[in-house]
Amino acid sequence: MKKLVAEFIGTLWLVLGGCGSAVLAAGYPELGIGFVGVSIAFGLTVLTMVYAIGHISGCHLNPAVSVGLWMGGRFEAKNLAPYILAQVLGGIAGAGILYLIASGKSGFELGGFAANGYGAHSPDGYNMVSALVTEVVMTFMFLIIILGATHPKAPRGFAGVAIGLGLTLIHLISIPVTNTSVNPARSTSQALFVGDWALSQLWLFWVAPVVGAAIAGLVYKSLSPEK
Amino acid sequence: MKKLVAEFIGTLWLVLGGCGSAVLAAGYPELGIGFVGVSIAFGLTVLTMVYAIGHISGCHLNPAVSVGLWMGGRFEAKNLAPYILAQVLGGIAGAGILYLIASGKSGFELGGFAANGYGAHSPDGYNMVSALVTEVVMTFMFLIIILGATHPKAPRGFAGVAIGLGLTLIHLISIPVTNTSVNPARSTSQALFVGDWALSQLWLFWVAPVVGAAIAGLVYKSLSPEK
Amino acid sequence: MKKLVAEFIGTLWLVLGGCGSAVLAAGYPELGIGFVGVSIAFGLTVLTMVYAIGHISGCHLNPAVSVGLWMGGRFEAKNLAPYILAQVLGGIAGAGILYLIASGKSGFELGGFAANGYGAHSPDGYNMVSALVTEVVMTFMFLIIILGATHPKAPRGFAGVAIGLGLTLIHLISIPVTNTSVNPARSTSQALFVGDWALSQLWLFWVAPVVGAAIAGLVYKSLSPEK
Amino acid sequence: MKKLVAEFIGTLWLVLGGCGSAVLAAGYPELGIGFVGVSIAFGLTVLTMVYAIGHISGCHLNPAVSVGLWMGGRFEAKNLAPYILAQVLGGIAGAGILYLIASGKSGFELGGFAANGYGAHSPDGYNMVSALVTEVVMTFMFLIIILGATHPKAPRGFAGVAIGLGLTLIHLISIPVTNTSVNPARSTSQALFVGDWALSQLWLFWVAPVVGAAIAGLVYKSLSPEK
Repeated sequence: MKKLVAEFIGTLWLVLGGCGSAVLAAGYPELGIGFVGVSIAFGLTVLTMVYAIGHISGCHLNPAVSVGLWMGGRFEAKNLAPYILAQVLGGIAGAGILYLIASGKSGFELGGFAANGYGAHSPDGYNMVSALVTEVVMTFMFLIIILGATHPKAPRGFAGVAIGLGLTLIHLISIPVTNTSVNPARSTSQALFVGDWALSQLWLFWVAPVVGAAIAGLVYKSLSPEK
Repeated sequence: MKKLVAEFIGTLWLVLGGCGSAVLAAGYPELGIGFVGVSIAFGLTVLTMVYAIGHISGCHLNPAVSVGLWMGGRFEAKNLAPYILAQVLGGIAGAGILYLIASGKSGFELGGFAANGYGAHSPDGYNMVSALVTEVVMTFMFLIIILGATHPKAPRGFAGVAIGLGLTLIHLISIPVTNTSVNPARSTSQALFVGDWALSQLWLFWVAPVVGAAIAGLVYKSLSPEK
Repeated sequence: MKKLVAEFIGTLWLVLGGCGSAVLAAGYPELGIGFVGVSIAFGLTVLTMVYAIGHISGCHLNPAVSVGLWMGGRFEAKNLAPYILAQVLGGIAGAGILYLIASGKSGFELGGFAANGYGAHSPDGYNMVSALVTEVVMTFMFLIIILGATHPKAPRGFAGVAIGLGLTLIHLISIPVTNTSVNPARSTSQALFVGDWALSQLWLFWVAPVVGAAIAGLVYKSLSPEK
Repeated sequence: MKKLVAEFIGTLWLVLGGCGSAVLAAGYPELGIGFVGVSIAFGLTVLTMVYAIGHISGCHLNPAVSVGLWMGGRFEAKNLAPYILAQVLGGIAGAGILYLIASGKSGFELGGFAANGYGAHSPDGYNMVSALVTEVVMTFMFLIIILGATHPKAPRGFAGVAIGLGLTLIHLISIPVTNTSVNPARSTSQALFVGDWALSQLWLFWVAPVVGAAIAGLVYKSLSPEK
């Protein structure tokens, strides 16, 4: 139960911090943080949580990560469902707090609310194929980083730095394509508030990250020096 | 006594570095550092001080942190008052040095001096409820990071990275809302120079951070694997 | 064989992440990541891979690095050819994925595709001598960082941070001169897609990095405290 | 002798990387790295060198650092002169390489060449008193970070991160005031190329950093837990 509370709080932080920086600060005139700031913010939500709750729950914060770790032989199947539920609920709570804060500005409009999308809803107009390839490949590499940096032969303690900054890197590359998901819980939390197109495109942000993560689990298991 | 001198110097650095980067460099035409630069600066004041004075005083630099650590069972009540006094005095000294530097520019005007505010004094016009929620939640998460990353089961030595970059993250999210406090000593130091509205809004930047930190102390104690 | 697969995946990531951030995100209007974002992205591809696959292949991802390590007495000559082949193929695969993603945007044009160049193809118009000096010196320093940070007397585990952020630094300095190579595999992968001028200038981005790296191998060996 | 070569190479890198990023990349239209990029670059020159040559020479790269470590009881007086000489020569070599690269652009003009200045030559017009206070206080804090992070009670290995990012922080605060020195070797290297006003203002960038560093050495010695 402590593990599920930790996953809930951690995913809340990922959504509030990552999407929050995008909604509140990215486009602020002149001084705004832009995509670089949002990329750093997403990465730091994970970096901070790895050190804060990694020793409690393992700090997945992401259904695709849980699936990839399971496929890589690092996580038990019986824990998949409760972890994913805690992550989705945590993400929704984070989006709710963000909505509460954001709506306290006069002239507030929900807009995209940092939801993920493709085609007409891709920030820079990329089509569905680009979005699929991007989300599969980015999540694949994210899991390679996670599985590698937490391997017993990797330097002790640095996993949080590598994984957190790896998520920053993924955002630096792919925000213009899909607004970057690689995390179905993050995508779901924003789509519930935006509704409409965000819900009808949500399937891609479950399918692609989970597929990319599962392949990475299999690939890394075969590469791993233990074998 | 050495601990109090360390807290004084460290909080001086937090205010001089964080607010200093905002006052001197954020809005410099074309090349200015913007909110990203200010966020990095605030975080690095804490990161650098954790490694420089963490082994002397624990490096709180913030009354809310001292309260949260006390509520989490990591800090003795009898040290609260002297630590908070040293932090507030250090913050004022940092603000004084910043004032001295900033006023050596022809045409200097004090302006907001990086003070914290809400409503008409929120950088992007957020109301008091948004400010309260933001400061409570951000300080809550800051303390979760601090309590987690300094837990004996967390990787050794990385606390300074996690805590410092956690403060960077908090600024990336919330500068547009309140100019980001999560630290009553930092808020007090700037309000004393600005006076007027900054002093009359200062209550929020004591109440909200302390409440958020205290809740985090209780929550983390119940989550912690030691128990 | 596992080592070569690791080098392939790692160099794929270096090109997809580094050149991908440049092609997809650098020039996005208003919110784009600029040279700072691209510099961070290149560095983080290496930082993440050092922790993910360093314990498998050593994480060279770069023919010049393999040559420099060989000259410095850290890598066997018989492994040079297979490593370099895996790196070049990985780079091409990364460029191919990037092409697939980038071309899914209406109105896509290949443009420079983040290829390296000098003279008329230097981003800011630097001549061939500047390009040669820059690539030799930058690769020399890159190898000094790599050889030093992986030395047994250097602090354990930090090599990935120093080397990755070292590559970020090299990009912060030299993108305007050559678009920054210091890596013949990265240059080759982009030149094959751009063809024409990029292929005819490609020689410099093999010669200069390899020369700089080889000199660094010799210099560091004579500086090293083991001797 | 190896130590002096290491200090020479390291200071060459500090000047080439820090001033180089400013001269070549800071003001590039639209995509330029601005003060944030320059601040990161300066910090990363030191971070990378601490891991690369820290185990050879201690990685001072700065006459003020050598003086501060001597005053703090960490460095022998007899080594002061050769270290400072190697640093100044390394800085000049770095400036020379930068000049060679920068002048290979058509329409090149030397301009400020990232030299340090005050009054009419302060980037944002700060007077001499502001410059003096800034350089004394910034170097004081830089040495507090160095002396603290390399103390035996500080976490092992993190000194390079704290010191390097500390220099980034110092630049984020003070570039608008003096273009940031805290390092007489760096200031000298640029002043020799600019001549004129830069040479006549150079005294301040020897006096202020050395005074700030010396005070920090004394203060930290009295704060240090060993005593």
